Amino acid sequence: MYQPPGVKTSPDLPVPDLMTAWVLGDPDQLLLREKPTPVPSRAEVLVRIDAVAICATDLEIIHAGSPASIQGGLPFNKNFTPGHEYMGTVAALGPEVDEFRIGERISVEIHAGCGQCKRCRQGMYTSCLNYGKPEKGHRANGFTTDGGFAEYAVNHINTLARVPDSMSDAEATLVVTAGTSMYGLTELGGLVAGESVVVIGPGPIGLLAVAVAKALGASPVILTGTRNKRLAIGQELGADRVININDEDAVAVVKQLTGGIGADYVVECAGTEATLNQAIHMTNRGGKICLAAFPHEAATLDIAHLVRNNIYAYGIRGEGRSATHRAMELMAAKRFDASRIHTHTFPLADLPTALRYARDRVDDAIKVVVTTRKTDAIARAAE
Amino acid sequence: MYQPPGVKTSPDLPVPDLMTAWVLGDPDQLLLREKPTPVPSRAEVLVRIDAVAICATDLEIIHAGSPASIQGGLPFNKNFTPGHEYMGTVAALGPEVDEFRIGERISVEIHAGCGQCKRCRQGMYTSCLNYGKPEKGHRANGFTTDGGFAEYAVNHINTLARVPDSMSDAEATLVVTAGTSMYGLTELGGLVAGESVVVIGPGPIGLLAVAVAKALGASPVILTGTRNKRLAIGQELGADRVININDEDAVAVVKQLTGGIGADYVVECAGTEATLNQAIHMTNRGGKICLAAFPHEAATLDIAHLVRNNIYAYGIRGEGRSATHRAMELMAAKRFDASRIHTHTFPLADLPTALRYARDRVDDAIKVVVTTRKTDAIARAAE
Amino acid sequence: MYQPPGVKTSPDLPVPDLMTAWVLGDPDQLLLREKPTPVPSRAEVLVRIDAVAICATDLEIIHAGSPASIQGGLPFNKNFTPGHEYMGTVAALGPEVDEFRIGERISVEIHAGCGQCKRCRQGMYTSCLNYGKPEKGHRANGFTTDGGFAEYAVNHINTLARVPDSMSDAEATLVVTAGTSMYGLTELGGLVAGESVVVIGPGPIGLLAVAVAKALGASPVILTGTRNKRLAIGQELGADRVININDEDAVAVVKQLTGGIGADYVVECAGTEATLNQAIHMTNRGGKICLAAFPHEAATLDIAHLVRNNIYAYGIRGEGRSATHRAMELMAAKRFDASRIHTHTFPLADLPTALRYARDRVDDAIKVVVTTRKTDAIARAAE
Amino acid sequence: MYQPPGVKTSPDLPVPDLMTAWVLGDPDQLLLREKPTPVPSRAEVLVRIDAVAICATDLEIIHAGSPASIQGGLPFNKNFTPGHEYMGTVAALGPEVDEFRIGERISVEIHAGCGQCKRCRQGMYTSCLNYGKPEKGHRANGFTTDGGFAEYAVNHINTLARVPDSMSDAEATLVVTAGTSMYGLTELGGLVAGESVVVIGPGPIGLLAVAVAKALGASPVILTGTRNKRLAIGQELGADRVININDEDAVAVVKQLTGGIGADYVVECAGTEATLNQAIHMTNRGGKICLAAFPHEAATLDIAHLVRNNIYAYGIRGEGRSATHRAMELMAAKRFDASRIHTHTFPLADLPTALRYARDRVDDAIKVVVTTRKTDAIARAAE
Repeated sequence: MYQPPGVKTSPDLPVPDLMTAWVLGDPDQLLLREKPTPVPSRAEVLVRIDAVAICATDLEIIHAGSPASIQGGLPFNKNFTPGHEYMGTVAALGPEVDEFRIGERISVEIHAGCGQCKRCRQGMYTSCLNYGKPEKGHRANGFTTDGGFAEYAVNHINTLARVPDSMSDAEATLVVTAGTSMYGLTELGGLVAGESVVVIGPGPIGLLAVAVAKALGASPVILTGTRNKRLAIGQELGADRVININDEDAVAVVKQLTGGIGADYVVECAGTEATLNQAIHMTNRGGKICLAAFPHEAATLDIAHLVRNNIYAYGIRGEGRSATHRAMELMAAKRFDASRIHTHTFPLADLPTALRYARDRVDDAIKVVVTTRKTDAIARAAE
Repeated sequence: MYQPPGVKTSPDLPVPDLMTAWVLGDPDQLLLREKPTPVPSRAEVLVRIDAVAICATDLEIIHAGSPASIQGGLPFNKNFTPGHEYMGTVAALGPEVDEFRIGERISVEIHAGCGQCKRCRQGMYTSCLNYGKPEKGHRANGFTTDGGFAEYAVNHINTLARVPDSMSDAEATLVVTAGTSMYGLTELGGLVAGESVVVIGPGPIGLLAVAVAKALGASPVILTGTRNKRLAIGQELGADRVININDEDAVAVVKQLTGGIGADYVVECAGTEATLNQAIHMTNRGGKICLAAFPHEAATLDIAHLVRNNIYAYGIRGEGRSATHRAMELMAAKRFDASRIHTHTFPLADLPTALRYARDRVDDAIKVVVTTRKTDAIARAAE
Repeated sequence: MYQPPGVKTSPDLPVPDLMTAWVLGDPDQLLLREKPTPVPSRAEVLVRIDAVAICATDLEIIHAGSPASIQGGLPFNKNFTPGHEYMGTVAALGPEVDEFRIGERISVEIHAGCGQCKRCRQGMYTSCLNYGKPEKGHRANGFTTDGGFAEYAVNHINTLARVPDSMSDAEATLVVTAGTSMYGLTELGGLVAGESVVVIGPGPIGLLAVAVAKALGASPVILTGTRNKRLAIGQELGADRVININDEDAVAVVKQLTGGIGADYVVECAGTEATLNQAIHMTNRGGKICLAAFPHEAATLDIAHLVRNNIYAYGIRGEGRSATHRAMELMAAKRFDASRIHTHTFPLADLPTALRYARDRVDDAIKVVVTTRKTDAIARAAE
Repeated sequence: MYQPPGVKTSPDLPVPDLMTAWVLGDPDQLLLREKPTPVPSRAEVLVRIDAVAICATDLEIIHAGSPASIQGGLPFNKNFTPGHEYMGTVAALGPEVDEFRIGERISVEIHAGCGQCKRCRQGMYTSCLNYGKPEKGHRANGFTTDGGFAEYAVNHINTLARVPDSMSDAEATLVVTAGTSMYGLTELGGLVAGESVVVIGPGPIGLLAVAVAKALGASPVILTGTRNKRLAIGQELGADRVININDEDAVAVVKQLTGGIGADYVVECAGTEATLNQAIHMTNRGGKICLAAFPHEAATLDIAHLVRNNIYAYGIRGEGRSATHRAMELMAAKRFDASRIHTHTFPLADLPTALRYARDRVDDAIKVVVTTRKTDAIARAAE
């Protein structure tokens, strides 16, 4: 049995020496393999993965390799396990770890900074200057270090948030998404009660940005997009007004809803040239834009408008500033029902099918969750 | 004589009822006229203008009208007096004003917010939501209210900074430029000692950004541009390294000078598509960009790089957050010699010539100053 | 009829030239008098007062004079009208005011800074350096300028928040109290979701601090005090745990509830030497304390503990940073029921009785509200 | 020879297996002993100590034990090596360390947070919640882990700042003191150009607070104290005005120098009840106080004044927020001459004499430096 030196395990939760994991093969190829169960070091735990949500970034990594390999110009990284929006159960403790107990349910955030670079020392661990260098202590599970499409993963204790009993496994996988939305609002200033917030793009981050903004008291919260079904979900999550940009002029409507001046805060989650310019033009003087989407191409933007109006724009990479903890707290307190964006569940063995649903939006899929616990998947499917 | 009710004047500094002022005529036309000397209200003073520097924005206003008229789609605003980088002597006090005394030398900043909108209440007076509405109390002398190419102007007491005896009139006109540079560095975080700062574009704001950054302890301070003469002035003002982008790859050199990671802060003062992308690519993960130039056209930018690297971009409109006071303090303490960018001086009557020098960069002009005090202009010309 | 020049009135809401107002007489004496209805200036409105809550500070002012007179060493200020926690209806508009319409229901915050001092320019209008100087534009209605124990008062538009139809007059008087609590949490950092917050002292500010902290997601929220009835109301408003300090050791219980380290944030609303030291000792390393109570005497404090643990302490004077707007928004969205602290209602004519109830806590009074609209008072009394 | 596994050494700088170190014996007893040379782990280096300055805290630790032992109620900690203000030469690199090279001169800051607690993750590493727990990664050399009164010490790479060639060993030991002053000013807001700053107490931190405030443009900078010799050094370091509180009323003079309103920022470095109350009373409305001294006893303070004037007070424990790097930069750029506070130098073997000079202020000692390099000590003594 699994019993690495210095690592604490429990007979209540036996861990096998080998585990099943999906790994990258050639581009767009995922292979189910056996791997040694990983070993937690100092300040790390072993997590038994119970559920994983699929994110658009997963699809890109499976297609093109991990961010580290892309940025480093490395060859396609075979044997790497993607998957970063997961939750599970603490199954073993690294040396000196007493912050968690074996058996606790936790959800994760992606980035564990190196803890020693200038940015980490400023509390900006998602901007770690040792990004992609695990030998310096940096981890971004599913991006640069093995992730969650597997039975087990190692996580730094900094990346864990406890899951309350009242929260299902599937809902807990959404904490990292809500945490990204929360991080965006945090960087915009955080004090959004009574402020006007526009969210552009009803993807998972956008929809949960609506929910988080509303939970913090923002008003009005306006959501723009092109698909009415998703806009309707946005309304359920708290949007005071939705705008289908195929039917209405988003900038004009936002101005009209905000006394002619535009919105205080805009969270841009679509990443197209058109929506980026809409963001610029619908933000009021002194307002702020969160750039939460990765545009695929260079965009031609009206920068002069941004400068002339003292607008600030914040590019955000995933979660940060412990925003996942704040998101978890609001979800635990049932301030919004994140599970409204969870549409489909599959067992881990059916990951390829799950990925297809997510990529092709089969059956209007938004968040597709993969679970290792059969009963949970079945139960959900039966609903 | 000038003696409006409630206004305090002094026999030591008699004020005429009518004054000479340059006013906008048709586009690109300036006319010298007589106007009534303006009257200060509550919290305002009358300033006798002693010197005015010419800014690129003045040239645009003379060509195309004031920002208020442009943004409001108004017809060309005749009778308006431009000029916003001036200094002078307090010549009369509005009702209840005791913060200043008649005879004090002061330099100005441009923007006096309305003091009652949401942004002003947050301390963001240059982002005033009543911009261009003098009836709400907003003033931006030379932009939306009469400015400094005249014998007298009215200023809100908030826009004044005392000039020490040791500072010449001409140098004092540069405080608002240095204040804009200081505002940019303030919004980037302010604590730049030991941080790497790149300034793109050796115009007046860029050159003084070099000076201010160095005065606050930034290291290294790197300046990029295309004209070696100006880059040399940047070195005199404190740049540790200058890059002529016609000769060197700015991004590559900055990375090499910063241990491969890029700069902590970039102050973009050129406003071209090429330099904006350089700014994005030379900023390190978690770094910040100040957008201090108004690009003339939409620019095609690598926004994905900005998002992926958690870079924040701050559009700034002129000075703000009382940065002119901090700039004045550093200049008064002789931390840098702003007058290095002052190249030419003309009497007010020769404003058209002065404007031509500034526009066409005649004789390598950088800052051209117009003065109402003949001796000063002559003395300077004789140097 | 009331029709001052430049002021806009409406036939729908006729205003008399004279009004009834309570004014200070000798210490502890209040007299009902006729006064001219006041006239709003630029950026001001006339408010018809519909309801006023009584605050402990009112009792002090009636006993000892207004803060301005106390600080200035002036004689007792006769003819001054106290009362600062009020709401009402916009009855007339000062010159150029178009931000509000006659007939709108509004609640107020106390402080309107001068808008021209250094602190106001930083957005710190409750720290106005022209405090108590109405000639400079500073107003603090009920403190330094006439307040709300009257039929009408003048308010700067900055001090108004719109009241939604769904909110009663009495509840709307509580917005300024909730705004003070919100201001305290704002200065502590604002992002309290998932953070541990202790509130010391279940007075009105303390009880609403519990409500606001909980609404923003703080957890756990702990309330300490001595009266079980009030502690029970704290629980209804969201406290996860209450501590009667006569029965339990507050510092020990807080440490036990926070994993041994103490609380992230403490809001001190009691102002005794004992509770101030409890605040210091129950705050964790790097934690923050809001000092929201005015202690009556100098207090002997363990400052070394504060220094050694990198604790920051924020003295707050009333509301600020537009926190009343954020509080209003949460109350409008029914995130908490502030009216739980409203215990008694009297007509304006019975102000002396109302004050007695508040001072002597007759019938367990917490917030006593005075209303000018008879039906409202009667209806409430009948409940 | 010293060659631990995974550690990189250099033949140019051979390290012995055993080293000489002073260790705590009984209270007030220091013993010179041989100890094994310590071994750096991941992200750590071995430092050959070249010079150490003596701080008042060292004297307390030698008298009463380390902060960890005091706070933990542990018995007096024998074999512990104190000394925390040191500089030296990198002599060996822990596993994976490539941020520094062997042979580089460095100065240190005291605190290396655990990197995994909530405070460290916020960038507040001097408020580490695992303070005193080296097994969690926390180090505070000379406080909780072995320090600098020895030939060698282990330091986390986060605690190192490179020393330029132009800076002497002795001057480099002062960087941590200047870093503490810089941290205080950082927490007060950092943007002190043109702001009024009072420093209370001309000890080492106070004197360098004067120097740092002036270097950042503060004006006026006022220093209060009781010893004219030290006040005179404060003037050399940039104080615009000094106040001997035996001769003048500090609060009255500060008010007079600041237009009657008091100072924007006060850095309290004396820690007596009298000076703490002076700090409160000389700070203006909305101003801030840095509490940089550890008072020996509880102090009776006018907290009501602090609350009524919206004053914030920041207890600071040593350096933080990488302020030592900013201090080093200003010192490297010769913005002030920190060595003005360095009065005496002794060889390491004479540490007891050096401590006596520091404790008893023999010969007006301010900073006493101990050096391991004989020539340096002799040279200095000969001056």
